[in-house]
Amino acid sequence: MQVSFDTDPSRYRHWKLSVDGPVATLTMDVDENGGLVPGYALKLNSYDLGVDIELHDALQRIRFEHPSVRSVIVTSGKERMFCSGANIYMLGQSSHAWKVNFCKFTNETRNGIEDSSRDGGLKFIAALNGTTAGGGYELALACDEIVLVDDRSSVVSLPEVPLLGVLPGTGGLTRLVDKRKVRRDLADIFCTNADGVRGERAVQWRLVDAVVPPARLAEYARERAEALAAGSDRPADAEGVRLTPLERTIDETGYHYRWVDVGFDREGRGASVTIRAPETAGPEDLAGIKALGAEWWPLAMARELDDAHLLMRANERDVGTLTIRTVGDADVVLAVDQRLHDLRDDWFVNQVVGMLRRTFARFDVSSRSFYALIEPGSCFAGSLFELALAADRSYMLADNPEGGPPATVALSPMNFGPLWMVSGETRLATRFHGDEAVLSDLKQRLGLKLDAEAAMDLGLVTVAPDSLDWDDEIRLAVEERSSLSPDALTGLEANLRFPGKETMETRIFGRLSAWQNWIFNRPNAVGERGALKVFGAGTKAKFDWERV
Amino acid sequence: MQVSFDTDPSRYRHWKLSVDGPVATLTMDVDENGGLVPGYALKLNSYDLGVDIELHDALQRIRFEHPSVRSVIVTSGKERMFCSGANIYMLGQSSHAWKVNFCKFTNETRNGIEDSSRDGGLKFIAALNGTTAGGGYELALACDEIVLVDDRSSVVSLPEVPLLGVLPGTGGLTRLVDKRKVRRDLADIFCTNADGVRGERAVQWRLVDAVVPPARLAEYARERAEALAAGSDRPADAEGVRLTPLERTIDETGYHYRWVDVGFDREGRGASVTIRAPETAGPEDLAGIKALGAEWWPLAMARELDDAHLLMRANERDVGTLTIRTVGDADVVLAVDQRLHDLRDDWFVNQVVGMLRRTFARFDVSSRSFYALIEPGSCFAGSLFELALAADRSYMLADNPEGGPPATVALSPMNFGPLWMVSGETRLATRFHGDEAVLSDLKQRLGLKLDAEAAMDLGLVTVAPDSLDWDDEIRLAVEERSSLSPDALTGLEANLRFPGKETMETRIFGRLSAWQNWIFNRPNAVGERGALKVFGAGTKAKFDWERV
Repeated sequence: MQVSFDTDPSRYRHWKLSVDGPVATLTMDVDENGGLVPGYALKLNSYDLGVDIELHDALQRIRFEHPSVRSVIVTSGKERMFCSGANIYMLGQSSHAWKVNFCKFTNETRNGIEDSSRDGGLKFIAALNGTTAGGGYELALACDEIVLVDDRSSVVSLPEVPLLGVLPGTGGLTRLVDKRKVRRDLADIFCTNADGVRGERAVQWRLVDAVVPPARLAEYARERAEALAAGSDRPADAEGVRLTPLERTIDETGYHYRWVDVGFDREGRGASVTIRAPETAGPEDLAGIKALGAEWWPLAMARELDDAHLLMRANERDVGTLTIRTVGDADVVLAVDQRLHDLRDDWFVNQVVGMLRRTFARFDVSSRSFYALIEPGSCFAGSLFELALAADRSYMLADNPEGGPPATVALSPMNFGPLWMVSGETRLATRFHGDEAVLSDLKQRLGLKLDAEAAMDLGLVTVAPDSLDWDDEIRLAVEERSSLSPDALTGLEANLRFPGKETMETRIFGRLSAWQNWIFNRPNAVGERGALKVFGAGTKAKFDWERV
Repeated sequence: MQVSFDTDPSRYRHWKLSVDGPVATLTMDVDENGGLVPGYALKLNSYDLGVDIELHDALQRIRFEHPSVRSVIVTSGKERMFCSGANIYMLGQSSHAWKVNFCKFTNETRNGIEDSSRDGGLKFIAALNGTTAGGGYELALACDEIVLVDDRSSVVSLPEVPLLGVLPGTGGLTRLVDKRKVRRDLADIFCTNADGVRGERAVQWRLVDAVVPPARLAEYARERAEALAAGSDRPADAEGVRLTPLERTIDETGYHYRWVDVGFDREGRGASVTIRAPETAGPEDLAGIKALGAEWWPLAMARELDDAHLLMRANERDVGTLTIRTVGDADVVLAVDQRLHDLRDDWFVNQVVGMLRRTFARFDVSSRSFYALIEPGSCFAGSLFELALAADRSYMLADNPEGGPPATVALSPMNFGPLWMVSGETRLATRFHGDEAVLSDLKQRLGLKLDAEAAMDLGLVTVAPDSLDWDDEIRLAVEERSSLSPDALTGLEANLRFPGKETMETRIFGRLSAWQNWIFNRPNAVGERGALKVFGAGTKAKFDWERV
């Protein structure tokens, strides 16, 4: 089955998006017969990747199509049931890779909620109208505030450990202690007891911000949404930018978009990703930019690149090594960057920057190796240079065998700020371990075209072979990479790509997810009698009691 | 086989410890027939747990028995071979649990080197007299400085990913980028290429601090050792404290020491750990304390507790839940704490504090659940209260069914400083998310006996049942814990015990080790044709190419 991430509100089966002034409401009302793959029913407002694809889409619509929205109420359309989390039968029948990719996407979406809260003018209120378990509570944890109905029965819970023998894997453990500052011993009780916590105790333990009677829930959520909306700088009366469907061709050779092209080398388990810059930088003013809307190059390119990334992750799991190239005029990219930088106070430009940030961030946690190939005619400048900085290595051709101008790279203000990694650090700061002297030296070179020698001297690229060696060196580097253990590479990259500072997000991807991946591989979870396998079957899990 | 951690220099088979003024030299010269278990030869100065137990012992001897030592040269007794790392055949034949526990111990030992560098007046120089691969290089990375012989052939390398399909699992990846600040793309090349790096390039990439000709190596290492020694406050002419053999009985019921007792409940997969305080706080002055030497209670108790912990980890892997009790006079513990605090400028007291710190730190990364049980007659005060803070939960009996004084807990200056976790934070700061108001409020209560109500109000304990409920509640809590998936609990605890700030050490235990554990479970490493299994057999590893 080919998984696609295309959807729009008219096609949603599981979510309703409604907008009322500055407040949007996202109502989860899962169609239990609407599972993405056969084999399970999405009962009790449980979710699978398909449900989360709609949530991700709805968030994108709110960001771009509804600029007047300043806060979002996340609630459910079911009686006495907010959400029971990821569907267990789906998890039980899924391969390890599917589980890991599913968790990664849901994590990215929840991190995206927090990204928009921090820097996108949107605040989120989870209005828990009923039982909230597992991934349901983890979704609530990603919101800025949580209110739980006080009906003497509805609880919040993280029952994964006691019921399923796995972790709450969508950031739950980390957000409990790091974001909500639940005391760790109380978190321990909460996470090892399937019964959950309700009422005043849920407030005392900081699991929720408030509990209110059923009749008051909607009103309370609206009040809080309006209060949080007050702090936003989103415009009251701007027109939204419609996210038009992506024009894309998928064929045997790869994925083909307007600005992005992916070509597969299936025998070599590789793919070549090429990003093209436009001919001109286009309009300089906001009116012109907004008239282009979703056609504005940085947004169109980011949407295509992100879509290609997600399609590859879901559908091309044997592709282990990506080479990334850019084609076009670096001056055009730098000019676009200048607009992104200068006009960022505008809501739309700000959302485009956020989209670029999240698109590049997906590369940082990608379980693929990738090399940037910097050749004459490329445009690794500013925002696009972030891809070279995100890459595990970058190769820059030192000369131009055709005799024309050599390859250059260039920095823009976008490399020093708003495209930060989920660690909260820029890729440049990460690369140079926060060395202020190096970073301020680099800042002096904004906009300069740096040839291979300069780029090597400044530590901006990894290797700079000349054209005599280039083909062999690249071929060998790709072949060698593709010959190594995929698991070892994933672990290696997960460590080397995030040196230095940690944030809640890096801890979710690095620490929590790594432990979950381990557990997802253990017989105690996924063996014939593992907890995840026997759930609901009426038999008890059988554990190897060894503590490791 | 029962693993023991007892050894002393007269019994070393793999290391030589020599002392010359302020400089000690630790020479690794592995006896290839001296493996801890049968089935492999420790060729090429490779190591197994037995080799590392000697290293750990030697470090302890230097800390306590050789106070005049201020710096340590770590080198090898083999020609052209410093150390080839952990023995691959040992890894290949070991169970998952053995591998994980082996890595944990070696990690703790290397973190201990850095702990002593930071706060124990000892600096370490790795003098690499030959090839330095894998765990050998990771040992060097734990030192303050690395010098590599420049003989045109000796390299440093981390060949685990290309040769074995696993990670450098003893902190290598993390120390490369976080400690030595190797640029991440250079680290990527270094870790994916088995050939390693030598000479000037090793210096340029920051892999080593210097390269020197063979004839100059010993002299250079000595110079650097003396230079680093100059900054130490270790005494020039103090008498050492001999680490006498631990008096210990091991029988079917448990481990029995003078101050520590461990009783197994094998049916319940639990163990009860009891720590006894002395009758009196003993001598107040340094002379009296040093006359006691290894018999001084905080040192004797810490050595016993640490030994019991290591024995359990290695030999009792089904024990999942520990209950921890203390017995004795809290005033005595507080008085000892006051000495630890007031006399810490003395080298011996400082080393005892370091020993307590590392002993408690092992609990933080223990893959066991543990509950502190605080009852009348207990002495969870100051340093011993750290065990309650380290515990996943603490239960405090609210009343005294015998009619005597109720249980109390108490804080001392030791709770606010030198017993920090590997995160660099105290357990109190971690518990309260660094909330300064809470912490300074607690500081006002130094030495006060806090009953269950006060301790609950202050958030210092988890639950305070009264005597009507106590037995049932404890029994249920232990039984429930012991019924859960051991793997899920290990993952849960690894996340909840380390909220907030991360350091290199927490990243090694949390991020790096978690990924390694995952890889250690994957068929690409440990399957019949996995890279770790087929190493040296002349057959090529067969990989499932899926990237996860």
